[in-house]
Amino acid sequence: MSFYTLKLRSDDVVEMIDQRKLPSETIYVELKNYKEVYNAIKDMIVRGAPAIGVSAAFGLYLGAKALSEAAEIRDYESFKRSFFKICDFMFSARPTAVNLGWAVNRIKKLVESGSEDVADIRSIVKRIRSEVLKIYDEDIEINKNMGHHGAGLLKDGYRVLTHCNAGALATAGYGTALGVIRAAVEENKKISVISDETRPFLQGARLTVWELMEDNIPVTLIADNSAGLLMRKGKVDAVIVGADRIASNGDVANKIGTYQVAVLAKENNIPFYVAAPLSTIDLNIDSGDAIPIEERDPDEVVGVFGKRIAPVNASALNYAFDITPNKYISAIITENGVLYPSYKKSIAEVFGKR
Amino acid sequence: MSFYTLKLRSDDVVEMIDQRKLPSETIYVELKNYKEVYNAIKDMIVRGAPAIGVSAAFGLYLGAKALSEAAEIRDYESFKRSFFKICDFMFSARPTAVNLGWAVNRIKKLVESGSEDVADIRSIVKRIRSEVLKIYDEDIEINKNMGHHGAGLLKDGYRVLTHCNAGALATAGYGTALGVIRAAVEENKKISVISDETRPFLQGARLTVWELMEDNIPVTLIADNSAGLLMRKGKVDAVIVGADRIASNGDVANKIGTYQVAVLAKENNIPFYVAAPLSTIDLNIDSGDAIPIEERDPDEVVGVFGKRIAPVNASALNYAFDITPNKYISAIITENGVLYPSYKKSIAEVFGKR
Repeated sequence: MSFYTLKLRSDDVVEMIDQRKLPSETIYVELKNYKEVYNAIKDMIVRGAPAIGVSAAFGLYLGAKALSEAAEIRDYESFKRSFFKICDFMFSARPTAVNLGWAVNRIKKLVESGSEDVADIRSIVKRIRSEVLKIYDEDIEINKNMGHHGAGLLKDGYRVLTHCNAGALATAGYGTALGVIRAAVEENKKISVISDETRPFLQGARLTVWELMEDNIPVTLIADNSAGLLMRKGKVDAVIVGADRIASNGDVANKIGTYQVAVLAKENNIPFYVAAPLSTIDLNIDSGDAIPIEERDPDEVVGVFGKRIAPVNASALNYAFDITPNKYISAIITENGVLYPSYKKSIAEVFGKR
Repeated sequence: MSFYTLKLRSDDVVEMIDQRKLPSETIYVELKNYKEVYNAIKDMIVRGAPAIGVSAAFGLYLGAKALSEAAEIRDYESFKRSFFKICDFMFSARPTAVNLGWAVNRIKKLVESGSEDVADIRSIVKRIRSEVLKIYDEDIEINKNMGHHGAGLLKDGYRVLTHCNAGALATAGYGTALGVIRAAVEENKKISVISDETRPFLQGARLTVWELMEDNIPVTLIADNSAGLLMRKGKVDAVIVGADRIASNGDVANKIGTYQVAVLAKENNIPFYVAAPLSTIDLNIDSGDAIPIEERDPDEVVGVFGKRIAPVNASALNYAFDITPNKYISAIITENGVLYPSYKKSIAEVFGKR
């Protein structure tokens, strides 16, 4: 791959590609403390549920390291107290993706399990460092496993529609939905992709088209309004999307517009697949109705790259995600295998088995 | 109303608001010959099926007048031959809206019915002039009748979603879908509108929001991807759209994305209404599958107002319209009353009655 989404450099600087600038500019930004990482998540320099999780983990490591060097931290208790504040702060960057909370909790547990000895602070920071690097490596590994399991669902010659960007750019690498497509291509299947542009933030037009072109996978861009027409014309064989959070009954929160694509797929008898790591499944939530939906600045709707498309003072609504009820979902592709309805049962089983 | 869509000035200049520039600039362009009118239709300075019909009629009048003054036109036969060429040319400006052909044929018939006397050329040009002004006046009258019939479908407090612009700007004035909303507001009902932005050309964001704000009718802009979420949340009471062509079985060709909105409305038990004059119904076409769908320049998808949103060399598809099968349509509002399923029957009846 000719790019990387993010990495922790050996000098403990987090480097990430600025996804707001793609595709016109390929710029990597350097983040040197947890607040910069928080802002990068909030302002969508990085986006995509798994990538947000990894970024948060990196940010927490930077926070822990800075605390360990701070004069006012004299004992483990004060380290822990200050670190947990940073955890809460990081958790608040974006509300919908569960991976953020999952990553935060994973690091939090490490700190909780540390002994109360002041000498332990430096050693726990080292352990956090290896843990966040492990989260990073695991994410790529998980995506490859997901690709392996999901590729079987895509036949040679399939034209696959995707929404938003659930690609390498949404993860530490390889991608969830686009990872499944990559895996099918690696199996020498001829796959072509139709990418919804995905207004208002245009992740499809800007990111999915870019990263697939970088990989020489054929991709055609459409306005979100064209998906239904192409499905009716028989020009879509399958839909694959990612997820920001999945309830224990299989309801899926994902980028705004996903629900519409799912309804249209069902109406046209086209399989609708969700590719997501198990960390995206929130067992604490019974159904999609309980998933918080982020509402973002209406300016993202009334303008495109700073160019105003609506009258001054126009009111606008900007929900960033929607819920796709489980009845529209043909299968959920995870690193442990493909889950089928009833999801309440298959999700419980996959977590029981782990 | 604080603006007009188009008019034929007393000095025989066609004046129209440049809809590509709205809402940031309110500019009226002057068109002095039929080629300029043709280009205005093709380049979407004017758009909307009824407005295209009226524009074409104005253009044909300019063409006929110029011919009547041309030295090489020596007899009625040569006038007719040259005029019919202009008619064919005008007809080719855009393929989907039937009103264009309807208007062209209406003027053509006048010329066909003229006597073969060379002296008749000037008098037939005069008759064309009054005919095109009649088409203009009739269009406004038809929209008001449509509004009268359709307003009964909208209850006090209704939140009505619309797609694209089927407003005053899409007609000689008042509007089809927005005309129904205007009529309901004139009946003192409290109506608020949700406007799909309508990518790629953004007629919703640029035109519908603008013209409703000009009329002080409450309107909220959404990205096309949000329509489904709002429907699921119970925030939409009805959908009204216009039409570019209606087959004799009630299948509707309208702006790309209309089909998706219709499917989502049905899925969420929300009535989906189409407001269109009888001239939009093409009795020669049995079903939507036979309606030609215009494919436009992909540049409209890869860019927004000249700002590129996708990588250089990205391929894109840009269908301008789609077909909504009759099963998704709750009623078709016409100037002669509201038509209900089965449309094959109700459409045949309304044309029998005329």
